[in-house]
Amino acid sequence: MSAGALVLSGGRSGLSYSASGGEGEGRVLGSPRRRYGARAPTETAERVFTEGATPGTGSSRTPLQSCFGIITPSSLHFERHHSGVPALDPRSHELLIHGLVSRPLSLKIEDLLRFPSVSAIHFIECAGNSWLEHEGRPGSTPQDSHGLISCSEWTGVRLSTLLGEVGLDPSALWVVAEGGDASRLARSIPLQKALNDVLVTYGQNGEALRPEQGYPVRLLVPGWEGNVNVKWLRRLQVTNRPAMSKDEAASYTDFMPGGRARQFSFEMDVKSVITRPCGGAQLAGPGFYEIVGLAWSGRGKVTGVEVSVDGGREWQRAALGEPVLNKAFTMFRLPWRWDGRPTSIRSRAMDDFGDRQPTREELIAVRGLIAGPDGFSHYNGIKIWHVQTDGSVTHV
Amino acid sequence: MSAGALVLSGGRSGLSYSASGGEGEGRVLGSPRRRYGARAPTETAERVFTEGATPGTGSSRTPLQSCFGIITPSSLHFERHHSGVPALDPRSHELLIHGLVSRPLSLKIEDLLRFPSVSAIHFIECAGNSWLEHEGRPGSTPQDSHGLISCSEWTGVRLSTLLGEVGLDPSALWVVAEGGDASRLARSIPLQKALNDVLVTYGQNGEALRPEQGYPVRLLVPGWEGNVNVKWLRRLQVTNRPAMSKDEAASYTDFMPGGRARQFSFEMDVKSVITRPCGGAQLAGPGFYEIVGLAWSGRGKVTGVEVSVDGGREWQRAALGEPVLNKAFTMFRLPWRWDGRPTSIRSRAMDDFGDRQPTREELIAVRGLIAGPDGFSHYNGIKIWHVQTDGSVTHV
Repeated sequence: MSAGALVLSGGRSGLSYSASGGEGEGRVLGSPRRRYGARAPTETAERVFTEGATPGTGSSRTPLQSCFGIITPSSLHFERHHSGVPALDPRSHELLIHGLVSRPLSLKIEDLLRFPSVSAIHFIECAGNSWLEHEGRPGSTPQDSHGLISCSEWTGVRLSTLLGEVGLDPSALWVVAEGGDASRLARSIPLQKALNDVLVTYGQNGEALRPEQGYPVRLLVPGWEGNVNVKWLRRLQVTNRPAMSKDEAASYTDFMPGGRARQFSFEMDVKSVITRPCGGAQLAGPGFYEIVGLAWSGRGKVTGVEVSVDGGREWQRAALGEPVLNKAFTMFRLPWRWDGRPTSIRSRAMDDFGDRQPTREELIAVRGLIAGPDGFSHYNGIKIWHVQTDGSVTHV
Repeated sequence: MSAGALVLSGGRSGLSYSASGGEGEGRVLGSPRRRYGARAPTETAERVFTEGATPGTGSSRTPLQSCFGIITPSSLHFERHHSGVPALDPRSHELLIHGLVSRPLSLKIEDLLRFPSVSAIHFIECAGNSWLEHEGRPGSTPQDSHGLISCSEWTGVRLSTLLGEVGLDPSALWVVAEGGDASRLARSIPLQKALNDVLVTYGQNGEALRPEQGYPVRLLVPGWEGNVNVKWLRRLQVTNRPAMSKDEAASYTDFMPGGRARQFSFEMDVKSVITRPCGGAQLAGPGFYEIVGLAWSGRGKVTGVEVSVDGGREWQRAALGEPVLNKAFTMFRLPWRWDGRPTSIRSRAMDDFGDRQPTREELIAVRGLIAGPDGFSHYNGIKIWHVQTDGSVTHV
């Protein structure tokens, strides 16, 4: 409770104010009510779109530097586009569960709503998030560098419940999920994960899924690369082998040195990024600043985040925001007093799996430097922001 | 993980399906991207407005029966209107902190953003929520009966940090918060609470506050009646006594038998409501249903929820959803197999303060039966839904 008083030294923060209120403000009767609200017209944070090579493809990045807390506004949730956003009718859309099962089922949304439900806060991160960092072309803002991640409260049915309902054949080993978009995106998930914490979701942040997030139903595979969280879910086929779909053969494999590739590298590793102050920010001058950022791990809970404000020489333990949840955004905060000299700030997260976020150099030593049009997946190197003498914060 | 299989008995749930998918669905390239998303046009849940006696007054209730999880969509957050929604300019709006302080300050939003921040998930409940239940006029849906409550992730600055910055006079005992709406709504908060967990917030569910929730800045007083969470906050005056404002003298006092009244009854007591199945629902017939609901306490954490499906004779412990947070919505769930006979379902919550939600009769025995235009505050009696032979669920 006294952190602020300690940090700011009771009025000696360097901020200066006059004691005056806006007397004339709001003296007329305000607007009438709305049945479904909207943000203030003066708020302008938005997703930034990068076009892909073919129509309907590309990505839309979340403005992490403009967001607060661990819940990403649904309107700003990132997207990786494969064939645009289909307009599915929730009254007629069906999810077929078939393959190596005793009793194949086709479920409408109203059927799904009758099953036991669960809500959980989880991030989804695109496997390719931050891939240009790997190439040595760092993003100029958190949106540029890390914007292909968002975190929501998801509600749905455990996939294990649905698989219990259809009855698994003893030979079952994989579940192939197929989306109802034009690209029929499909991914294979090992049964062990499917029976663990995977959800078939219809709710996001308290209401129905947004169209861009798979309305009316999406697979939620906590901690695994975004692509397997199949949107507009139309089919779950239980199999004894992976489908080797285009989305897990031609794409979403991780190139390695020597022309080899990692396949089915599902888990998103421990990672963090400072979102305030960050690239694009302008510090008002020497004085107090709070360093705030996001940390996450697809392998479990964040156990700690260390921050360096001196170019990586010394590291200080940041405070973690509550609640610290499994496979969810975790806030970290560190008070900092900038002395006005050029420096760089960076963060490194640790998780309860035992991993610590590597430097870019450490990552390249293990996985090589893979540049090119296919990009690099699962990059989780430490992100650095440079503070210049004039208070500007940049990525180089 | 096997709850569904156990409950639904592996395919013997009574649900019947055919194995067919929607082959023609989504075979064309979908819609292009949006910079700021919106819900699907097929989603229609909305706030319901009840008009007050004078222009700009009334209330807008959250459709709890249509919501999922513990986060209420900001677009559906409840409102209690006192003078409409003012359109404040976040660039010019100022928050004045003055009174019994050493260094009065006037802060713009950009100044607030420089202080150490905190994010927390908390409900806000109107003191008058469920007041007609008390009178014996029960609401027909959760929106009707309990819709003056919502839960969000809020982000802002601890009030203790700001009070540390201005420096408290030794005689300081209260903080009077005044809103920037036309009614200049004002409430007094004891310093002990102000220094504990009160926040001066600018963020809600990941983005700026919505206009209806106090944009650009509102007081967040965790667990206390909605009215003290002053919206469009323009002034915090430190005093040695309560202001006895119209909003805490003429209104927001609790009438007692014999013409007396309770004043400054801030805490919202432990309470719960079943949101599925609920009044307005139609059960498809005998078989499996999951009973789902929300529980909360303004005094701390929910420690348990018991549910009765036989008119209040026997009570079963419901499962609580994770995370269970302080002064926040907590989900509860209980599998139920309806045998087709008329019955009633109800829930009662307990908190770590040691309270248990009373029946309406127990509450009336202590606080009397107070009917009339001023209503009854802090009603937290057990809510009952009646299941009829035809599967309809009603409030009587």
